[in-house]
Amino acid sequence: MTDTPRVRELLTGYLEECRLQVIQEIQRLIPPDRPAAFLYELMLDYPLREAKGLRPALCIAACRASGGTLEAALRPAVALELYHNAFLIHDDIEDESHLRRGRPTLHQLHGVPVAINVGDAMLALSLQPLLDNIGFIGLGPSLRILQEVARMARESAEGQALELDWIRRGHWALEDADYVRMVEQKTCWYSFITPVTLGALAARQNPAHTAQLAEFARCLGIAFQIQDDLLNLSGEVGAYGKEIGGDLWEGKRTLMLLHMMRRASPPERAEAERILSLPRPGANPELRGPALEPVLEQLVARGQLTPEGLAHLRHVMAEAMPSKKEKTPEQVRFLLKLLHRHGSLDHARQVAQGWLEQARRAFDACTGWLLPSVHRDLLEVLLTYVVERGK
Amino acid sequence: MTDTPRVRELLTGYLEECRLQVIQEIQRLIPPDRPAAFLYELMLDYPLREAKGLRPALCIAACRASGGTLEAALRPAVALELYHNAFLIHDDIEDESHLRRGRPTLHQLHGVPVAINVGDAMLALSLQPLLDNIGFIGLGPSLRILQEVARMARESAEGQALELDWIRRGHWALEDADYVRMVEQKTCWYSFITPVTLGALAARQNPAHTAQLAEFARCLGIAFQIQDDLLNLSGEVGAYGKEIGGDLWEGKRTLMLLHMMRRASPPERAEAERILSLPRPGANPELRGPALEPVLEQLVARGQLTPEGLAHLRHVMAEAMPSKKEKTPEQVRFLLKLLHRHGSLDHARQVAQGWLEQARRAFDACTGWLLPSVHRDLLEVLLTYVVERGK
Repeated sequence: MTDTPRVRELLTGYLEECRLQVIQEIQRLIPPDRPAAFLYELMLDYPLREAKGLRPALCIAACRASGGTLEAALRPAVALELYHNAFLIHDDIEDESHLRRGRPTLHQLHGVPVAINVGDAMLALSLQPLLDNIGFIGLGPSLRILQEVARMARESAEGQALELDWIRRGHWALEDADYVRMVEQKTCWYSFITPVTLGALAARQNPAHTAQLAEFARCLGIAFQIQDDLLNLSGEVGAYGKEIGGDLWEGKRTLMLLHMMRRASPPERAEAERILSLPRPGANPELRGPALEPVLEQLVARGQLTPEGLAHLRHVMAEAMPSKKEKTPEQVRFLLKLLHRHGSLDHARQVAQGWLEQARRAFDACTGWLLPSVHRDLLEVLLTYVVERGK
Repeated sequence: MTDTPRVRELLTGYLEECRLQVIQEIQRLIPPDRPAAFLYELMLDYPLREAKGLRPALCIAACRASGGTLEAALRPAVALELYHNAFLIHDDIEDESHLRRGRPTLHQLHGVPVAINVGDAMLALSLQPLLDNIGFIGLGPSLRILQEVARMARESAEGQALELDWIRRGHWALEDADYVRMVEQKTCWYSFITPVTLGALAARQNPAHTAQLAEFARCLGIAFQIQDDLLNLSGEVGAYGKEIGGDLWEGKRTLMLLHMMRRASPPERAEAERILSLPRPGANPELRGPALEPVLEQLVARGQLTPEGLAHLRHVMAEAMPSKKEKTPEQVRFLLKLLHRHGSLDHARQVAQGWLEQARRAFDACTGWLLPSVHRDLLEVLLTYVVERGK
């Protein structure tokens, strides 16, 4: 399973088939008697864009390699896809992203209010296929799946909250383990762990086997995310859906950026922190420092702003000349240079490799009971795909 | 049940008791082993603010007046309260509201990204009590409740989408029936219909009786919303504030505004449309100085700026740049004058009265089987409260 063309062929075909099945099923969920234009059409926008469809494929492959049917896994896969796309819509607003899968983000196209509501509607609609599923796989597995979805949603929100908290506090003193914990909650749960878990549960797999698959998915997901972050630093136009080097412009806490911050000299770190605290170019009107001065003094008088806070604000406003207030390409290149200088990309590759090996061991533990099939092959092929896809 | 002091006393006591029960239960949902500060504490912010707690009370009263226990209704009531508050958080972002229940809105205090995520987390968490409920009321009623919640979420999202679509298109040619349809979907479902339906289902009430209660709630909810919109217009039009004339500043499609637009002369209507198309002061994101935003958030995170100080600063920055392109108090007063000139407030009062009478008839149809109790009294008292509360 290391022959690249065969890997790609299997992967592409399998993922595309799963994706089409899921999209068909999503379209069936839409009530035929309701006006579609301002809600349901927008719900289909992201799912219909070119995408890997990894989550549905993981769910369906886990189910079928556990002896379950496509039918049994289809509705959980639909729920996952709805949830994922809802999360992307809200994430794009939170990150102020401009592009998603090569097209403008939903809030860029229709405004933030509509985009928030479409995301909410998708979260809401994801409950229906899980309830419908009772008629297909019975009550017990359906309820276990609902419990897993509740858990997944909580983990994702906690992971997202953790990352937003780091950003808000300008917090950079973070270890590999902090990053892994955040990624596991924010991304692995809903993208890897829950898809295979729902697939296994839909096939009435036993708890021990289900846990083995979940561990495989967890390790694979962490390796996947680190590789994703590496690709973001070297991607070419068209090869990656988001903006090139977007993570650096956004100041996203990636494994390599955190590594660099730990290794950098104090002056390097200070400069990097300064750059990363600047917003990226885009929606960025001018600061109005002078008008604010009396208000700030009032806040200090009321005890709502400390003298240290006032000094810091004055400093920031004084520094913020029009040419200095946004990240420049030169500054982003400086960050990239620091990453190379401190071997942070190599470090990330090694850590990803470690998780990949752990994923391989977890997969090997499943080979005794996973049915030999294209579905098992698909799961195995993902171990290769993690590193191959960047090439 | 028309004696006002007694009505108020019963209502206040009952609602407060339900609210406390529900808040206790929400606090129990929060995992004890997770860091609370940046997610779970924020989830409790809105629920802990002074509020009526109408939805939990409706759910509990419907259950107990149907012969069910408090225990049976408690978890559905919790889910409704979580859903409601999540909806408020997202709604406040969509409407760019500054105040909620007398304090700054969540996104004013913590930024849009955090507020979107907290809302998502609350939507996610609302699934758990509904699953836990299986242990308390059994599988059948629990599944029917889950189905109702899925329906409710879809109706709310459709109603919200309908209103956002009218706003986006600058659409004003709308009849009373259009307004009622939107309000029914956007507000009545999750605030009235679903609360009593879940209460009745939790008590294992039969479908015919459940439908009767739902019809009562639907009519009551429509009357309630019209009365809410009328109350929003009473008082002086000053600077923008959520409580006074806020709907006119926002350009919200209310029954009376739509009536006035139908009755107005062409020049009046043209002028009204022009005013309504202007953003309200502070709504323009261009004026908010987002460059300063991350700095301010950092100060808050470090404890150098209080949340109140932050909200005040944001408010000042938004107000500091008046523009010709924003609504003025004079223009809002002009709209109010048109509403009076065309008898639109009287029209709205009459329509509300009609729905109230229909609610009364629906309630009378239930008196044959609703158990005589404080719970039945609470439901009946709401018929009086709709009109009394404005006085």
